Amino acid sequence: MLFLVRMDVNLPVDMPQEQAAQIKAVEKAYSQDLQRQGKWRHIWRVAGEYSNYSVFDAESNDELHEMVSGLPLFPYMDVQVTPLAKHPSDIH
Amino acid sequence: MLFLVRMDVNLPVDMPQEQAAQIKAVEKAYSQDLQRQGKWRHIWRVAGEYSNYSVFDAESNDELHEMVSGLPLFPYMDVQVTPLAKHPSDIH
Amino acid sequence: MLFLVRMDVNLPVDMPQEQAAQIKAVEKAYSQDLQRQGKWRHIWRVAGEYSNYSVFDAESNDELHEMVSGLPLFPYMDVQVTPLAKHPSDIH
Amino acid sequence: MLFLVRMDVNLPVDMPQEQAAQIKAVEKAYSQDLQRQGKWRHIWRVAGEYSNYSVFDAESNDELHEMVSGLPLFPYMDVQVTPLAKHPSDIH
Amino acid sequence: MLFLVRMDVNLPVDMPQEQAAQIKAVEKAYSQDLQRQGKWRHIWRVAGEYSNYSVFDAESNDELHEMVSGLPLFPYMDVQVTPLAKHPSDIH
Amino acid sequence: MLFLVRMDVNLPVDMPQEQAAQIKAVEKAYSQDLQRQGKWRHIWRVAGEYSNYSVFDAESNDELHEMVSGLPLFPYMDVQVTPLAKHPSDIH
Amino acid sequence: MLFLVRMDVNLPVDMPQEQAAQIKAVEKAYSQDLQRQGKWRHIWRVAGEYSNYSVFDAESNDELHEMVSGLPLFPYMDVQVTPLAKHPSDIH
Amino acid sequence: MLFLVRMDVNLPVDMPQEQAAQIKAVEKAYSQDLQRQGKWRHIWRVAGEYSNYSVFDAESNDELHEMVSGLPLFPYMDVQVTPLAKHPSDIH
Amino acid sequence: MLFLVRMDVNLPVDMPQEQAAQIKAVEKAYSQDLQRQGKWRHIWRVAGEYSNYSVFDAESNDELHEMVSGLPLFPYMDVQVTPLAKHPSDIH
Amino acid sequence: MLFLVRMDVNLPVDMPQEQAAQIKAVEKAYSQDLQRQGKWRHIWRVAGEYSNYSVFDAESNDELHEMVSGLPLFPYMDVQVTPLAKHPSDIH
Repeated sequence: MLFLVRMDVNLPVDMPQEQAAQIKAVEKAYSQDLQRQGKWRHIWRVAGEYSNYSVFDAESNDELHEMVSGLPLFPYMDVQVTPLAKHPSDIH
Repeated sequence: MLFLVRMDVNLPVDMPQEQAAQIKAVEKAYSQDLQRQGKWRHIWRVAGEYSNYSVFDAESNDELHEMVSGLPLFPYMDVQVTPLAKHPSDIH
Repeated sequence: MLFLVRMDVNLPVDMPQEQAAQIKAVEKAYSQDLQRQGKWRHIWRVAGEYSNYSVFDAESNDELHEMVSGLPLFPYMDVQVTPLAKHPSDIH
Repeated sequence: MLFLVRMDVNLPVDMPQEQAAQIKAVEKAYSQDLQRQGKWRHIWRVAGEYSNYSVFDAESNDELHEMVSGLPLFPYMDVQVTPLAKHPSDIH
Repeated sequence: MLFLVRMDVNLPVDMPQEQAAQIKAVEKAYSQDLQRQGKWRHIWRVAGEYSNYSVFDAESNDELHEMVSGLPLFPYMDVQVTPLAKHPSDIH
Repeated sequence: MLFLVRMDVNLPVDMPQEQAAQIKAVEKAYSQDLQRQGKWRHIWRVAGEYSNYSVFDAESNDELHEMVSGLPLFPYMDVQVTPLAKHPSDIH
Repeated sequence: MLFLVRMDVNLPVDMPQEQAAQIKAVEKAYSQDLQRQGKWRHIWRVAGEYSNYSVFDAESNDELHEMVSGLPLFPYMDVQVTPLAKHPSDIH
Repeated sequence: MLFLVRMDVNLPVDMPQEQAAQIKAVEKAYSQDLQRQGKWRHIWRVAGEYSNYSVFDAESNDELHEMVSGLPLFPYMDVQVTPLAKHPSDIH
Repeated sequence: MLFLVRMDVNLPVDMPQEQAAQIKAVEKAYSQDLQRQGKWRHIWRVAGEYSNYSVFDAESNDELHEMVSGLPLFPYMDVQVTPLAKHPSDIH
Repeated sequence: MLFLVRMDVNLPVDMPQEQAAQIKAVEKAYSQDLQRQGKWRHIWRVAGEYSNYSVFDAESNDELHEMVSGLPLFPYMDVQVTPLAKHPSDIH
């Protein structure tokens, strides 16, 4: 079951660079682990913004929430979730 | 080069059913042709709405515009385009 | 899996009363059938508006879309879907 | 008399973890007490966000305000209230 | 129990004058009847707009909805309801 | 001459409790003084929010501005003013 | 007492040219009459739009509403009113 | 003096094709004439929408308004104008 | 050439009173100097808000930007500029 | 391939002047270097705001993102990107 998720990241401008770098590193590992499991199907950078559009494959709304709220950057994000359904024109 | 495109369809409620069915059939063929060419990479229904989120792979903004504005339903749509870039956490 | 759905109904002001009455009757039967199946868990009128907030219990985004887009009033509605997850403070 | 209430929580990112944990614990107890009394009928997490949708059963707007404004997290919340009425299609 | 209600009226510009005059006359009588009963406590024109802000005194959300949705102009209105509570600084 | 005024209060979450209590006490006295003079005709709490809707009776826009901008909480408020006129259906 | 008024005009695109011309002629006479009386102090076209910003000098909200709602184009306008007060830096 | 102008075109879906083609042809000639005069400096299609962003070079707000409101498609457009100034980093 | 400018001032609530008073004094002198030159034609307080609507007479967008961005309070303001043109009904 | 980019700069009001001046100097050099390469085709100040509209010429969404996110002021900006296509009326 797929969900489109937009994440806008707002790091405080006065966060020490080292701390920011560390959070981002943990975030990257967390994301790539879910990608390898096939749960986080796509992640794209929104061109020109510190934001991404992602597609998650979750078994339930609960699992989706667990994945998104577990992100190290979650406290610094605005998140919007759109549940996706099969489109009748989809050839896959 | 990828673009996220949201399309919201607003067919006039008094359009004759036959006419609506015909436009949708042409639309479907048009979409599936582009999907088979690998240009229209994903198409998902927004759950609960007469809308879709799609991902196009275009060589330029011009090609993207040509594909979207060529849609039979284009005169009845609100369209929003978001250019997508490679995300540093993407494993693909 | 629960979804909060807001539906705003916009019937054309020049729709013949008989036609409006008939659509609403079919809508009511459709809704009550889903309520009896336990799929449409709650339906509340938004006080002062021709709108409702509903809670659906669906097995997937696809099933949710099927139920909502099958509504006789669907062509006259603006719909917003919010996927709901278990809240840690919920005692149920 | 039912009210749909959306609460968006915005804890300051620099609030000490211990303080945050304590507020949340008091919040949880406060919420569960009202749930047990049948006043706070439903609480759902908005999937992917630090937000909830709740349904309160209050005897008046005053009682509703008392319950919501008494929340330990109230100073950190954006709150939106929608008064709900009986829907003619409701089978309950 | 008080509710602030904003009503924005959108009559079709091609509605025959006689029909518009008749609806408005019934609307006025309906409103004044509720005012005399003490249910419709205040009605003010929004200066410069075809809109009003009103204060209703209803025993429940259901009664409020009944009064507002029974307005002859209801099909032509956008309505927004705000439930009001006692303010601690109120001297009345 | 009446004005509907909505005030949304945003006290900094780190304001010392004593300071907040003092400002609120002065605010209350200020408001009640104007209420007794008949200038501040109504004040209602927006249920579930730290906001109020008020009705002021001022002789001019200047007097209205003086009253609202003189509020001790004014620097912490978002304010919206709607000038009100006599409604043709008003029975008073 | 001054009010800033923004008017956005939306004439139906299928209104016969003669009818449109006539309404505009009456509108112009109405506006110029109020300008000569000193009631309609300024009228400016919003560059690039079928809209104007105007400044009215009215003795009350009632008089303002009477002037604006009496405009021949009023049924085709969206109107926004902002009450203006004396600014402490104003040298006039 | 430069102005950024966004134009969103909304042709009625039931406009006869011949009429639409004719308006567009006149529009094109009108635009290209102003381009040749150096008044309409840039015109770009917004990818995926029936809209354009343009840059006009006008001697005054009046001249800008004259050019934009003279467009054959003006009655079918939503227009937004942004006045542009020299940027201190501009190398031209 | 006239421009309508709305300025919303957001002084930090923790700015020392002396510093705020000094900035406002310089702002006032700056404004009154431009008013005396006939460049800043009108300045009105938005009733109930820490905002103003002003009308500037500038020879170009560049001159307008210079005047507005030179305001001592500019770093604390949200500014919106609307270019104004001659209205055909204007009698002046 | 062209992109219209709007950048709104929000420097913290308490940033030391020296630090702000330094960031702006690096920003200016960065911008002018890209202008000289023909990548940053236009940069205009939005009159009255600390914002700019720019036109970039990039070979891909990735290159655009690299250029924009590399700006020294990027952490302090809100950015909006609009992909531009060839307009059929363009004479160039």
